[in-house]
Amino acid sequence: MNVTKPTLVVNLNTCEKNIQQMANKAQLSSVVFRPHFKTHQSAVIANLFKKAGVSKITVSSIDMALQFAAQGWNDITIAFPVNILQINDLNKLASEITLNLVIENHDALLFLNRHLKHKTNILLKIDAGYGRTGINYNNHQLINLLTRAINSSSNLHFIGFLSHFGNSYSASSRNEIKEIYTASLNSLTVLKQQYPNAFYSIGDTPSCSIINKFTGVSEIRPGNFVYYDSFQMNLGSCSIENISASMACPVVAIHENRNEIIIHGGAVHFSKESINIEKLGTIYGLVVNSNLNKTNNAFLKKISQEHGTIVGPKEWIKSIKIGDIVHIIPIHSCLTANLMKENTIYV
Amino acid sequence: MNVTKPTLVVNLNTCEKNIQQMANKAQLSSVVFRPHFKTHQSAVIANLFKKAGVSKITVSSIDMALQFAAQGWNDITIAFPVNILQINDLNKLASEITLNLVIENHDALLFLNRHLKHKTNILLKIDAGYGRTGINYNNHQLINLLTRAINSSSNLHFIGFLSHFGNSYSASSRNEIKEIYTASLNSLTVLKQQYPNAFYSIGDTPSCSIINKFTGVSEIRPGNFVYYDSFQMNLGSCSIENISASMACPVVAIHENRNEIIIHGGAVHFSKESINIEKLGTIYGLVVNSNLNKTNNAFLKKISQEHGTIVGPKEWIKSIKIGDIVHIIPIHSCLTANLMKENTIYV
Repeated sequence: MNVTKPTLVVNLNTCEKNIQQMANKAQLSSVVFRPHFKTHQSAVIANLFKKAGVSKITVSSIDMALQFAAQGWNDITIAFPVNILQINDLNKLASEITLNLVIENHDALLFLNRHLKHKTNILLKIDAGYGRTGINYNNHQLINLLTRAINSSSNLHFIGFLSHFGNSYSASSRNEIKEIYTASLNSLTVLKQQYPNAFYSIGDTPSCSIINKFTGVSEIRPGNFVYYDSFQMNLGSCSIENISASMACPVVAIHENRNEIIIHGGAVHFSKESINIEKLGTIYGLVVNSNLNKTNNAFLKKISQEHGTIVGPKEWIKSIKIGDIVHIIPIHSCLTANLMKENTIYV
Repeated sequence: MNVTKPTLVVNLNTCEKNIQQMANKAQLSSVVFRPHFKTHQSAVIANLFKKAGVSKITVSSIDMALQFAAQGWNDITIAFPVNILQINDLNKLASEITLNLVIENHDALLFLNRHLKHKTNILLKIDAGYGRTGINYNNHQLINLLTRAINSSSNLHFIGFLSHFGNSYSASSRNEIKEIYTASLNSLTVLKQQYPNAFYSIGDTPSCSIINKFTGVSEIRPGNFVYYDSFQMNLGSCSIENISASMACPVVAIHENRNEIIIHGGAVHFSKESINIEKLGTIYGLVVNSNLNKTNNAFLKKISQEHGTIVGPKEWIKSIKIGDIVHIIPIHSCLTANLMKENTIYV
C-alpha cells in the first residue's frame, strides 16, 4: 500500500462480510435487500453486492441513478422526493430500466403524470416520525388522493410506500434505536390495513444493523453498513471490526508541546461532520491502527480545508514521525467516500 | 440560466470587482498580490486573476499546484507544511516552475535537502499566534537553525517567512480582526530585525478585507474574497454585494405546517460547515434572492447527504412551488466550490 496523500482505504474483505451479514438477515426475514449505493458510489463495491446476489439498488439522486444504470444496474429506486426539473433524465432512465420514484406531494405527481413518457413505479414517501420529508403517516386523505391519482395514470404504477426512520440517528442507545424502529413501524399499522397488498420499504443502517428479524416490511435499504464509521460505532450499530473504510493521511507537522500532530487531511477529504463523545468533546474522526482494529484515544480535533489537527496521548505523539501515515475512521463515511472518489484504494 | 439540479452560480462581474479591489489595495501598499486559488480551483476564475495582472499564486496542496502548473501558472507557493511523501510530484514541479515551499520543521527540511533535485524556494512557516502550524515566532533557536540549514543547501533557497493569521476567523467584530492583525504583525517584530531582507507573506481574507494599508509585509495571499460567503459576511469582512457565489437548488418538498421547504442540496453540495447566528441559531446557509442582494430570514437549518431543510417566514414559504429554484449563500464558499467543481455555471 503506497499512500502518499490523503486516501480512502477500503478493506474489501470486511465489506464482503458486512454485505453477506445484511443479505443473510434480509433472506431470513424474506424481505428484498435493496442496498443504498449513495454510501460508496463505487463500481468496485457495487460488484461485491452483485456477487452477493443483489440486483435491485437504491440511490439518492437522479445523477447517481444515471451512473449506475450506465454500469448495468436495471432496477433502481431513487429514494429522494423526485426533482421534477430533471424530467429529461427521468425519461431516459424510465425508458431503459425499472425505475422506482418517490413522491410526497400532489404537484410532483401531476407533473410526472403529464411528462413521464414511460412506465414508472411510484412509491409514496411516508413520514413515520422522522420529520424530514414524506406525507405524515396519519394524513390518510392525502395518501388516498395520491394513490387514486397514480392509479388513474397511464404511465405511473403505484407499488407501495417508502419510509426512512432517520430519527434512529439521534438515538443514544441500541435500545432506543429498537424503540424508534418499533414506534415507526407501528405508525404504519393503519396504512397496512388499508393497503394490505402494498410494498413497504424501510431501511436506515442503525435499525437494519440492530434488528434481527424484520416483520411487516417488504424491503430494506441500508447503505452505510458496507463501510460503517465512527458515528455508527458510537451509536452502537457496529463494532470496530465491522468498519471497512478509513482515511490514510500523511503527517506534515508535529507539535509535541501541544500533544498535536497535523496531517494533510481536512474538510475537502473528510467533509465536516462531527460527533460529541463524552470524554473527548467534539471530534471529526477517530485515529485507529493500520489494521483498523484498535483506537488509542487519539482523535481529529479540528479540521480546516486541508489541515487536520490530531490530539493524542503523549507517548503516541512521541512515536510519530514526519511522513508517517495515520489512519482515521471518518465520522460519516458516506460524505468522506463522496469526496474521495478519485483517491480510494481497495485492499 | 437553466438550472435543473444543485448548481454553484458564480457572478463573474462581482468576482472581477473583488479581484480589482484587492489588487488595488496590494498595489497601494506595494505588496505582492499572490491570491490563494484553493477557494475557486477554477480555470475560469484563474483567468480573471490573470487579466487583473496576477502572475504569482498560492495553493494548498501539491495536487492543486500540479493542476495550475499544467494550466500555465509558473510561480506557485504551496502554503501548507510540505508533504514529503509526494517528493516525486515536488521534483516535477520544481523542474518546471518557480516553486515556493513552506517548511516548519527540521525533518522535512533534511528530507528536501536530500531528495529535491531542482532549485526550490523555501519559506519558513511562522506561527504568529494562531496555533495551528508553524514555528512559534519566539522560537528563534529553531528559526536560526533552519535558515542556516537552508542556506548551506545547494538546491534550497531561503526567501523568507509565511504566516496565516487564522485566528481572525474567530473574531467577533471588525475591530477584533484589526486587533488580531496588529498583534500578529507585532509578534514578527524581532524576526524582522533579525532578517531585515527576508520576504514576509501573510494574508487571511478577514484581515485583507478590513485592513486598508499593509505595512511591514511583502505579500498578501487572500483567497476566499473572490467569492466571499455567509461566514465572511457574518464576520464583517464583506457586504452582501461582494458575494459572488451562491448555490441554486431545486425545491422538492414543501411542508407549510412546519414552515419548511426541502431542497435538493445537502452535505455533498454545501459541505457541512455551519455558523451560529444570534437570532437563527446554527445555520448551514442563508437564502437570498436571485440577484444575490437581499436575504429574507430564510435559512438552511439542517442538511443531510442530499437533503437541505430550509426554514423561512410563512409568507415566503407560501410563495414557493415544487420545482422552484432557491438561492443560498453557502457558509464556506471554498468547501462548496470544491464539491461543486463539475456543477458550476458562470454568469
